[in-house]
Amino acid sequence: MSAHTTSFSEQPPPRPSLPERRISRRLSALSSVERGQNGAPTGTTEHELTEEIEKIKRYEDFTTIDWVQDAAREQLRRRARRKENAGFFERDGHLGWRRKLRDSYDAGQAWIVVTLVGAAIGLNAAFLNIVTEWLSDVKLGYCTTAFYLNEDFCCWGEDTCDAWHRWTPLWPVNYFLYFVFSIIFALTSASLVKAYAPYAAGSGISEIKCIIAGFVMKGFLGFWTLLIKSICLPLAIASGLSVGKEGPSVHYAVCTGNVISRFFDKYKRNAAKTREILSACAAAGVAVAFGSPIGGVLFSLEEMSSYFPLKTMWRSYFCALVATAVLAAMNPFRTGQLVMFEVRYDRSWHFFEVIFFIFIGVFGGLYGAFVMKWNLRAQAFRKKYLSKYAILEATLLAGATAILCYPNMFLRIDMTEAMERLFLECEGGHDYDGLCEKKNRWTMVLSLLFATIMRTFLVIISYGCKVPAGIFVPSMAIGASFGRMIGILVQALHESFPHAKFFAACEPDVPCITPGTYAFLGAAAALSGIMHITVSVVVIMFELTGALTYILPTMIVVGVTKAVSERFGKGGIADRMIWFNGFPFLDNKEEHTFGVPVSQVMTSDVTSLPSTGLNLRALETILSQNKYQGFPIISDPSTKALIGYIGRTELRYAIDRAKKAGFISPNAKCYFTQPDSTAVQTPSTAAPPVTFDAIESATGQQSVDFSRFIDPTPLAVHPRLPLETVMELFKKMGPRVILVDYRGRLAGLVTVKDCLKFQFKVEAHETTRDDSTLDERQERLWNIINLVADWIADKVMNISGGRIKLGGGEGRRAGILQSDGASEDPRDHREPIPAAENYAILDGTEDGDEGVELQSR
Amino acid sequence: MSAHTTSFSEQPPPRPSLPERRISRRLSALSSVERGQNGAPTGTTEHELTEEIEKIKRYEDFTTIDWVQDAAREQLRRRARRKENAGFFERDGHLGWRRKLRDSYDAGQAWIVVTLVGAAIGLNAAFLNIVTEWLSDVKLGYCTTAFYLNEDFCCWGEDTCDAWHRWTPLWPVNYFLYFVFSIIFALTSASLVKAYAPYAAGSGISEIKCIIAGFVMKGFLGFWTLLIKSICLPLAIASGLSVGKEGPSVHYAVCTGNVISRFFDKYKRNAAKTREILSACAAAGVAVAFGSPIGGVLFSLEEMSSYFPLKTMWRSYFCALVATAVLAAMNPFRTGQLVMFEVRYDRSWHFFEVIFFIFIGVFGGLYGAFVMKWNLRAQAFRKKYLSKYAILEATLLAGATAILCYPNMFLRIDMTEAMERLFLECEGGHDYDGLCEKKNRWTMVLSLLFATIMRTFLVIISYGCKVPAGIFVPSMAIGASFGRMIGILVQALHESFPHAKFFAACEPDVPCITPGTYAFLGAAAALSGIMHITVSVVVIMFELTGALTYILPTMIVVGVTKAVSERFGKGGIADRMIWFNGFPFLDNKEEHTFGVPVSQVMTSDVTSLPSTGLNLRALETILSQNKYQGFPIISDPSTKALIGYIGRTELRYAIDRAKKAGFISPNAKCYFTQPDSTAVQTPSTAAPPVTFDAIESATGQQSVDFSRFIDPTPLAVHPRLPLETVMELFKKMGPRVILVDYRGRLAGLVTVKDCLKFQFKVEAHETTRDDSTLDERQERLWNIINLVADWIADKVMNISGGRIKLGGGEGRRAGILQSDGASEDPRDHREPIPAAENYAILDGTEDGDEGVELQSR
Repeated sequence: MSAHTTSFSEQPPPRPSLPERRISRRLSALSSVERGQNGAPTGTTEHELTEEIEKIKRYEDFTTIDWVQDAAREQLRRRARRKENAGFFERDGHLGWRRKLRDSYDAGQAWIVVTLVGAAIGLNAAFLNIVTEWLSDVKLGYCTTAFYLNEDFCCWGEDTCDAWHRWTPLWPVNYFLYFVFSIIFALTSASLVKAYAPYAAGSGISEIKCIIAGFVMKGFLGFWTLLIKSICLPLAIASGLSVGKEGPSVHYAVCTGNVISRFFDKYKRNAAKTREILSACAAAGVAVAFGSPIGGVLFSLEEMSSYFPLKTMWRSYFCALVATAVLAAMNPFRTGQLVMFEVRYDRSWHFFEVIFFIFIGVFGGLYGAFVMKWNLRAQAFRKKYLSKYAILEATLLAGATAILCYPNMFLRIDMTEAMERLFLECEGGHDYDGLCEKKNRWTMVLSLLFATIMRTFLVIISYGCKVPAGIFVPSMAIGASFGRMIGILVQALHESFPHAKFFAACEPDVPCITPGTYAFLGAAAALSGIMHITVSVVVIMFELTGALTYILPTMIVVGVTKAVSERFGKGGIADRMIWFNGFPFLDNKEEHTFGVPVSQVMTSDVTSLPSTGLNLRALETILSQNKYQGFPIISDPSTKALIGYIGRTELRYAIDRAKKAGFISPNAKCYFTQPDSTAVQTPSTAAPPVTFDAIESATGQQSVDFSRFIDPTPLAVHPRLPLETVMELFKKMGPRVILVDYRGRLAGLVTVKDCLKFQFKVEAHETTRDDSTLDERQERLWNIINLVADWIADKVMNISGGRIKLGGGEGRRAGILQSDGASEDPRDHREPIPAAENYAILDGTEDGDEGVELQSR
Repeated sequence: MSAHTTSFSEQPPPRPSLPERRISRRLSALSSVERGQNGAPTGTTEHELTEEIEKIKRYEDFTTIDWVQDAAREQLRRRARRKENAGFFERDGHLGWRRKLRDSYDAGQAWIVVTLVGAAIGLNAAFLNIVTEWLSDVKLGYCTTAFYLNEDFCCWGEDTCDAWHRWTPLWPVNYFLYFVFSIIFALTSASLVKAYAPYAAGSGISEIKCIIAGFVMKGFLGFWTLLIKSICLPLAIASGLSVGKEGPSVHYAVCTGNVISRFFDKYKRNAAKTREILSACAAAGVAVAFGSPIGGVLFSLEEMSSYFPLKTMWRSYFCALVATAVLAAMNPFRTGQLVMFEVRYDRSWHFFEVIFFIFIGVFGGLYGAFVMKWNLRAQAFRKKYLSKYAILEATLLAGATAILCYPNMFLRIDMTEAMERLFLECEGGHDYDGLCEKKNRWTMVLSLLFATIMRTFLVIISYGCKVPAGIFVPSMAIGASFGRMIGILVQALHESFPHAKFFAACEPDVPCITPGTYAFLGAAAALSGIMHITVSVVVIMFELTGALTYILPTMIVVGVTKAVSERFGKGGIADRMIWFNGFPFLDNKEEHTFGVPVSQVMTSDVTSLPSTGLNLRALETILSQNKYQGFPIISDPSTKALIGYIGRTELRYAIDRAKKAGFISPNAKCYFTQPDSTAVQTPSTAAPPVTFDAIESATGQQSVDFSRFIDPTPLAVHPRLPLETVMELFKKMGPRVILVDYRGRLAGLVTVKDCLKFQFKVEAHETTRDDSTLDERQERLWNIINLVADWIADKVMNISGGRIKLGGGEGRRAGILQSDGASEDPRDHREPIPAAENYAILDGTEDGDEGVELQSR
């Protein structure tokens, strides 16, 4: 619904004066026709499942938009416009230029929005790139000519750089400063996130997937999230944490799209249309993060969007193009290139290498499965025990990362830089600290192995901490180090047995194996393994490096990775996070075979409204006594003939309107059908024209006509229709509710949430996991952490003679107590979600004031 | 339905013995539950529109598959399998290995099919590449060591080639032989197509689009089409006609997929599943044609598929990968490269060039619009006058092309080769006949301009002639020559004003403009302009050339092209051909605003069957008296309560089955509902288990129970639901028919064809074109052609002294007479379509014998 994107910290707009409010109310009422929510009543489900229902309750948190109604509304709007134009034709004989202008503005609005948004995303990306580089360099030294320049810009065009100074000449001091900067950056980032925009934490890809699928999370795409994410992302990356910028890029891009599109009529009132823009923004986000416009479009298609019509593809293409062009024009790296690294491989590959490529592919799949499993456990632990220590956690992680990574030559440098070096061929003067030298070979292999393992560990514990954090680049870096290792091993093998039949394809006396390409393939494998995407990975890897000769190997590796990772369950980390967080999302990737009719899933005990005979007071009682988002209209409680459907908001508004319009008694009868319309048997006659003001005359003292607020044609299905078909209807058509009628009689209603609940139940039956050992282990780990923390606190106090007192101890203990009390369901501890409701209240969007809420979106 | 792909020339399988037939009949009956067709009755539409309805009748030609039912059937199959497994669990405690094997075979069938199909496509592509090269070279000379080698292979590894001889040392004789070979190739190709597989003519992309969308064209994807297309494609290309191999590649790839998947259970019976394979094959077809696997996947996504779930994307990826890998392993060009040309540009582009890029983009859009408009006119002319002279036409075209193209250096050589040369940079020793030399500049510009214009003209008249013919490569060649021309002009401009402010970004004293890149961009623009695709063009261009630096320019050019071409109407040439041929295809790209409820479009005078009380004889009369593909079941004619739906095939089969099962009187009452099921008010009880043999016992002498053959849960909508929503339902859910019910009572039914008819009507109203002048002009042109032909025939007879008598004259005159008689609707003359019915009869798939038809698919 329209209020979905109000950022939590925005003030409600000042109340307009009375006539203004009436107009805006009308507008919002018109717009409210599109909506029609329905939450599934929870009390009606079987008793023996109450415990499971408790877990399922999380699905009640959010609302959804109704694509069908939104589309219908857009149709209505266009038709009205056309009629208007037709009227003009009659009067003037031709269209006036003003109308023409308005028409083309209306038609071109989408393009204006996409261009503006693309440009804004490109600018933001350029800004972020520059700031990130500066912050990363500031950890090491400063520019004497101008403090705000990074090392590259400070030394631009000079061979030896005098302007750039390291902080001190002593390396231990430098190292300490480096460590301190890391900690400060992480601390700042985490604090800002916590204080101003909790939604800015993490990558945001899972949430955006849900939002694009039609769910509504207030504030997630608000201005504050955009601002804080843009500020904190460079800090988080510069802090050295094992996090990437791609997920957050998508998030800030989508925020930009949401914020900008709000200023345009077409999108202010149509949530479904807005989703098209958001898809395009997601594409632009990836495009600027990787410098890969087509890869971005494909990523948006493959990963982000549940429904991707061609029009959206074309929008995404355009948005990514504009964003990338602006980024290229800004030229943040001063290299004229979009990407940080571009590699050209001179040698092609040999068919015998396919066996190693397959091995790398298998690694990618295993890596993805392993990281997903343990990262989810880490996240569960974080939710259960660490949610109170988000800032401390991020800071400690940054510190630990700095300490652990410094000794290793591949971990010490920036992940992008590391990848660049690993990708390079050895020939042509590319070398980095003896990576290519034969004598260093085994040292390098060990070093790379250590880098792979350590980075994997760091990713597992870092991804999900409360700073803006992506997992793309870290995964690629891990894959690259592993791949390079394999490449060096294969090279060694070849050099040991140069005349083996296996290596017959190699030409003698020239290098045959290019370890750099293995690194490249490793990066592709790891990226595909963690995200479960295929085509986009291949395209992104190309656009990153231009290694066209390697298109087949890349495809093979990614294909193997995909095949392996599907052994370990469907969906990449974004999908797992959706499941983990309990977002209501019908996954397109999953295919279910439930073998039950929809009647087993539907809510049959529906609170429905008889079309005649209900008086106003009874209606208000029904509204106040339950929280359902809408009500089916039936002829009368005994025959239950289905007449239509009315959303809660519409009903609420209709009642208020009727009350204001005239002196109305609480006993006034409410009619949801017009007296004649019940008699109509051949309904091919068009609906009577609904003029809004007609309500005034129709509102007598003793009866109210609500017929124009109902949706007379809700989607309705047969009770024996297979559940799978109903889920397909939800996925592809996107209604908020599907009614179930049996020969014209209301039998029940079903929502996405009902389907998800049932799915959850079935899955729980199929995989009855025993979480108790896991819980126990987590508990033990938490106790150990506490002991260590206490010990450190004591030591520090002792050493400092009581002057420094680390006060975490009691708080942590309190945390334990608190979490013990509620530990039956750790998932309920998730931080951002319960908070959403608070923001709604801060936002002036309480349920009681829907009219204003609709405006303030 | 399942019989959609029987090739016209296959014999019906020999009739199995009786017990076998009974089993197979059961199988087909089970499979027939999925179906349920309904043709819209034509007699009921308004009288004043009869003339338009005549035109619309073309929509009655084909049948469609029912995605919803197919999906439901697949669910049923899986569930049955699961139950079976559950039974096994109980008995043995664990799964037997045989069952496990069968299970994994079942699960892996898709992959086996895709792998086989991919490999077959790759092999076929390699074969075609080799044959095409040989044929092209044979026009010029022959290999003395082995006649079957082409020039490259004949001279492999030798610097000066002695084994390869030109036919004669005299160039006029060579030229004449070249001309003769061209004519012979075209003649052979056209004759084979006409004699064995008329469907092999043209590109096939439009038809495949419709087939993938769910329509059924018998024989279009059969074995003979595959064979003939594979043989005739090299001939057509070698004949020098301005046709490409990409469209036909897609066609033979999809044929391969269809032919191979027939051997597998899963696909034999499920038409919807088969479509997934076909989408994957389309990807592989483009992949091998261009050596561009990812481009192929995207092409399949962007252009071919109306619905593209992620699973299909992954299948397409895999299929394209296998096909490309096989092609690479075959290494048909012996270069180790997949593509015929690969270019590397050393220089990057400058921002000021964007203005020229935009100009090239505009050219692409205009080119596309121009060619589409005139090619459609040419096609109309062809259908009206030339359909009898398909072979003569192709032969003459090839001759004319050979004569016209020889004088121009860019037209003389193969289109791919021409492109390769045009794309190259001038630096680094790449030069072709002085293309790069400054003194030739103006000659080159004129030559390129002539090439552009001449090739455009040839494409307009050649595309659509009755040989396998694509339009991708010709378009790209045109774009490349235009682009190179612009490039040379810009270069000249820069060299004339090297110090102009406009060229400030150029470094002094080094070449600044690379005309080759303009050719590259021109090719992208023309391809995008003719096909109206964006992302796939960009990716294909990269995979063709590896010009990564030019990703932004390519995107800009393609974007401009897209924007320009949308000014001239929606849809590329494939979509226009669909419209032109009158295929029933709901275009995803179009958005309509009709503003009418479905009740205005539906057929309200439906022949429906009462659920009780109809006797067998009456039922058979209904079946024989009309051709509807299915019948709604209602409670009784007065109340019309909707019970379900039964397809014609199911009903036919049920009647035959009942008749055979026992001695049944023609007066036996037919029941479509079970006696108790009408009383069920709470339908949450599961459906009674349908064992097939139960029918034997239930079939008494005086009553027949057909309840298990009906679909009790057809999709039904409210009469006032907007037509747009109904069309969305058709597009996204893919049912064959949607019933319209008003409060449980049948009000009508609507099919895709009804929607298309309405759309056509609306469009005809909006754009009332006057075709008479066009018709007149065509008539005049045809008369001129006749005069010329007669004159030539006379001359030849005179010169040869009456020995050679070109007998076309009378035939042509007869053709005129004939076409005059039926010229009210030129579209009815289309060749392949009416033929389909004949093939069906040849095929033993007459309507009367559905059981066998189902098997023989």
